[in-house]
Amino acid sequence: MIRIAIDAMGGDHAPEEIIKGAQLSAKEGQELIFVGDEEQLIPLLKNYNFHRTQANIVHAEEVIGGDEPPVQAVRKKPGATLPTAVRLIKEGKADAVLSAGNTGAFMAAAVLYLKCIEGIHRPAISPALPTQDPDRMVVLLDVGANMDAEAVHLLQYGIMGSLYAEKRFHIKSPKIGLLNVGDEAGKGSKVVQDAFKLLLDSKVHFVGNVESREIFANKADVVICDGFVGNAVLKAGEGLVEAIFTMMKKEFTSGVREKAGAALLQPAFSNLKRRLDYSEYGGAPLLGINGVCIKSHGSSNAQAISNGIKVAANLVEEKLLKEIREQIQRQEDENND
Amino acid sequence: MIRIAIDAMGGDHAPEEIIKGAQLSAKEGQELIFVGDEEQLIPLLKNYNFHRTQANIVHAEEVIGGDEPPVQAVRKKPGATLPTAVRLIKEGKADAVLSAGNTGAFMAAAVLYLKCIEGIHRPAISPALPTQDPDRMVVLLDVGANMDAEAVHLLQYGIMGSLYAEKRFHIKSPKIGLLNVGDEAGKGSKVVQDAFKLLLDSKVHFVGNVESREIFANKADVVICDGFVGNAVLKAGEGLVEAIFTMMKKEFTSGVREKAGAALLQPAFSNLKRRLDYSEYGGAPLLGINGVCIKSHGSSNAQAISNGIKVAANLVEEKLLKEIREQIQRQEDENND
Repeated sequence: MIRIAIDAMGGDHAPEEIIKGAQLSAKEGQELIFVGDEEQLIPLLKNYNFHRTQANIVHAEEVIGGDEPPVQAVRKKPGATLPTAVRLIKEGKADAVLSAGNTGAFMAAAVLYLKCIEGIHRPAISPALPTQDPDRMVVLLDVGANMDAEAVHLLQYGIMGSLYAEKRFHIKSPKIGLLNVGDEAGKGSKVVQDAFKLLLDSKVHFVGNVESREIFANKADVVICDGFVGNAVLKAGEGLVEAIFTMMKKEFTSGVREKAGAALLQPAFSNLKRRLDYSEYGGAPLLGINGVCIKSHGSSNAQAISNGIKVAANLVEEKLLKEIREQIQRQEDENND
Repeated sequence: MIRIAIDAMGGDHAPEEIIKGAQLSAKEGQELIFVGDEEQLIPLLKNYNFHRTQANIVHAEEVIGGDEPPVQAVRKKPGATLPTAVRLIKEGKADAVLSAGNTGAFMAAAVLYLKCIEGIHRPAISPALPTQDPDRMVVLLDVGANMDAEAVHLLQYGIMGSLYAEKRFHIKSPKIGLLNVGDEAGKGSKVVQDAFKLLLDSKVHFVGNVESREIFANKADVVICDGFVGNAVLKAGEGLVEAIFTMMKKEFTSGVREKAGAALLQPAFSNLKRRLDYSEYGGAPLLGINGVCIKSHGSSNAQAISNGIKVAANLVEEKLLKEIREQIQRQEDENND
């Protein structure tokens, strides 16, 4: 029985879309533990036909807002839904936790209560993004946990990202790329140059530098970078997609001909929009934390939450954490030889 | 008479699109100096109806390739078209130089022959990008000259970017934003936190942190960042636009209905594509260099080259360098008070 703790009050559309999404993914052999306000949750669970054996509620009233300073928020409100959900893993009551709430607070609570896996210097937020190939995604890490990554952190991102892509997408020996300003060795900042050497000497399937224009072109299955850079790339992508849809709307309503064409293409646009909507892609694990933690996008709808729960269950089943522990141990042993 | 030196052999479509583009922008009171292979250039200039008084040729046979390591290439081939064109400014024979060739080699030659403006620590590559507002662009700097920017470099980018946006887009007191992972002060890496304070104390119209999703949403007229980050953002944007057009092509040819719609929208798509084509936007000045240097995109067509030449002439007329010199001097004087 896999037990998944869910922050029922985190995200723009909580609690309703969270419960609705949980119902979409609910299945036998899985127990969902909703952390949130009983008064709101009981009628919602009834509405969405949850049975008592499938769903439990852990009551918590306080919620950490999306804009609250993460570390302070977790310290000041340890009883809020997000920290409480994270603690359920520590207390042995859950195998994984999912939240669409404050990313920084999720990371802070995870580090505080669950700690990093032994040997891991820094955890990494690790979303999967769409690519131009509809059947493939690319994992980008870190996108904002660690603003001043050192070379050894980037190496560890490579090891963790490789195992994650293997488990989640069933790719054997995923291709690992290092985000850089050029293809050739010797490019980029000092940290990135050092990381290049460490990756070359490691056991991961390192394919070298990847320019950010190639992220979406399937040159690598996993692209690793500093959290500041990853965050900038990720959000620039989101902003650009928004800007392009704004531009399209204007162009495609500029005349009678355009309007007719746009009407015919309506279903195709919906497909395109869905494919480009990062929030649908099942959430980002906080890799390196000693517990399966899935961060869903703040704007997640029910489908996105459902995808996130599936990813959480999958990573528990596939014993991702155990494998990360073993690989990191092996890497350390080699360094000590 | 403004004299513009043009690397006639740099870029994917040289020399023909370069000459064609130069013809598009050619006007009275402007002298163009083409640096390249006479044998190729003489018939081309004739084809495009250049008069002897408007165009000169400086013969150079060697060309620095797009993939050559920049610094070594400039050292090994000082007589190649790009370094030769840059030297024309030093020799007092040109007021500005334009190339669509190797960016790193352009920067290396500019630093070697023209030096930085007094007081400037590091130059910055400074393209203007489209935004969701068709009437506005955003200047992003640095996008790759300096991989390990310090806080004071970012401050200087702010000062130079402000003057550039003012001259080029005739904006009074342009809004300057600092690329960061969140809106609030105190976010980001150490360098960025320090730069935030310097910008706050400076004379530029600092609007605070800008998340990269807001780059294209007109929150600021100028966004400043480390060259590694800027390069990653810029190229991620290019890659994403390519990926989106690939996706659209697939979606919009998936059935009869879609094909009919796409046919009707053909002109609208062309507009959209042109608006999103970074290469059309007139090239990026190498701000901080003691000479007007315009880097056009490697894939520039004639229109892009023509735009670049106009920007070069405009910056000479507007005396951008003189103003940068004065502002930097003023900033230094204040720091010494």
